[in-house]
Amino acid sequence: MLGIGDDCAIYRPRGSKEDLLFTTDLFLEDVHFRRSTHGAKDAGRVAMCRSLSDIAAMGGEPRFALVSLSVPGWADDRWVRSFFESLTSAASAAGAVLAGGDLATSEKLACDVTVCGAVPRGSALRRDGARPGHAIYVSGALGGSALGLQTGAGRAWKRHVNPEPRLALGRYLRSKAGASAAMDISDGLSLDLQRLCLASGVAADITDPPVFLGASPEQALHGGEEYELVFTVPAEARIPKHYQGLALTRIGQITDGPAGLIRHNGKTLAARGHDHFQDSCQRM
Amino acid sequence: MLGIGDDCAIYRPRGSKEDLLFTTDLFLEDVHFRRSTHGAKDAGRVAMCRSLSDIAAMGGEPRFALVSLSVPGWADDRWVRSFFESLTSAASAAGAVLAGGDLATSEKLACDVTVCGAVPRGSALRRDGARPGHAIYVSGALGGSALGLQTGAGRAWKRHVNPEPRLALGRYLRSKAGASAAMDISDGLSLDLQRLCLASGVAADITDPPVFLGASPEQALHGGEEYELVFTVPAEARIPKHYQGLALTRIGQITDGPAGLIRHNGKTLAARGHDHFQDSCQRM
Repeated sequence: MLGIGDDCAIYRPRGSKEDLLFTTDLFLEDVHFRRSTHGAKDAGRVAMCRSLSDIAAMGGEPRFALVSLSVPGWADDRWVRSFFESLTSAASAAGAVLAGGDLATSEKLACDVTVCGAVPRGSALRRDGARPGHAIYVSGALGGSALGLQTGAGRAWKRHVNPEPRLALGRYLRSKAGASAAMDISDGLSLDLQRLCLASGVAADITDPPVFLGASPEQALHGGEEYELVFTVPAEARIPKHYQGLALTRIGQITDGPAGLIRHNGKTLAARGHDHFQDSCQRM
Repeated sequence: MLGIGDDCAIYRPRGSKEDLLFTTDLFLEDVHFRRSTHGAKDAGRVAMCRSLSDIAAMGGEPRFALVSLSVPGWADDRWVRSFFESLTSAASAAGAVLAGGDLATSEKLACDVTVCGAVPRGSALRRDGARPGHAIYVSGALGGSALGLQTGAGRAWKRHVNPEPRLALGRYLRSKAGASAAMDISDGLSLDLQRLCLASGVAADITDPPVFLGASPEQALHGGEEYELVFTVPAEARIPKHYQGLALTRIGQITDGPAGLIRHNGKTLAARGHDHFQDSCQRM
């Protein structure tokens, strides 16, 4: 039903009332984490949450996960067991079982996590449904993960290594709130909102997003690995200020400007979020 | 329906007449291939065929693939494009579309391929259906891939870098031949047949398998990356000598001995096939 270019691919099994969502995310040593700063538990949790967040962004219920892991020499049995336990318990907490995978050895740790989620047929939240006049919202406060990576300590670091996939919010947006488009903020609001706008063929006008305590406005606009959701709703939709304790903040609206153009407080915003393929070291 | 321990995990979508098969396989530089010996096209093809072969082993029809790729500095755009084209065309030839993936950069190439296949509900060929008295067969001739890795030239090398997932044979075994169990020979006949016997709780008596021209009996018994199928059928089943030009050879029978015990020409056979997790360098 849907291939490359959204948070998940969508597959419609023959005769089923459900669509299945699939996402796969790499988690690489010295690209996505460092052994010197990330414990085994942190690493395992983050590896799983990256994919769960993509399922959340489309409003899905996680069903199962496949994990490919290549173990480096420095990781002893205890480290690997702890990594796997943490990864598995993050999956379980989200309702997914570990259904299979592959194992190898290599110099650096490489982990690839595939997660399958499900939504009622035809109901997945996609990136391409935003229309001029729709309001733009974000969940939570942004910039905490980038701040944590910078300081390596305190609440912001905890935020960095304890991402929370917004699964309940995603389901709410899909089934109750009438959201027209959504995605998760994995590479920074500026870049991810631009992707949403490109997929929808629209532009956006935004103000300042809510900022995580201590983070800079720049970190809030461009910092990656937030795993909050950015979503759009028709102008008449009523969105509560909080959902299950999580703030939902209106940051602007979709316009009919050139596709992908983001204006921030009236000025064109350069998408400076993280793009692994262009610069794998930007975040480290 | 089925988790870790077979060629694929099995997922039954609600209300669907199909079961979905999922497999994921890592393809790592200096573990599964070397840039000095494998061209981009060879590497791409092998990376995809590893997973397609798992779908074949369960009698499935490939539907879609997800590919996570971490690109090293040495691989220029042309190399990456050629790798991807080869991988994608191997998928297309098998009926699967590339539906998504992830991209990153790293020091060494790491690729993880997830393939989804489908079978009519409840019909997947599994490892656990072999019973005492069932006949054991293999497709093709074994040892060619191991010989190719050793010599790096000639027909055997072509065999090594041109694996053929036995998709048509797998579907035939599932739908027509009444096979009771099957798996693909990715880590060597001795190790893979032992896995099949352990899953089924049975033992096996075998003679010499058919040997690829120029390969040693040892390479035929223990060589990995063959991607032929080993399968069992009830004693009364009639299996043709060839299926679409591919030899099908009876090599022995299942017995009620200790689970996993393989006897070869009357002597206990040590499973010496390749196990990545125990020794990633064995094959290189």
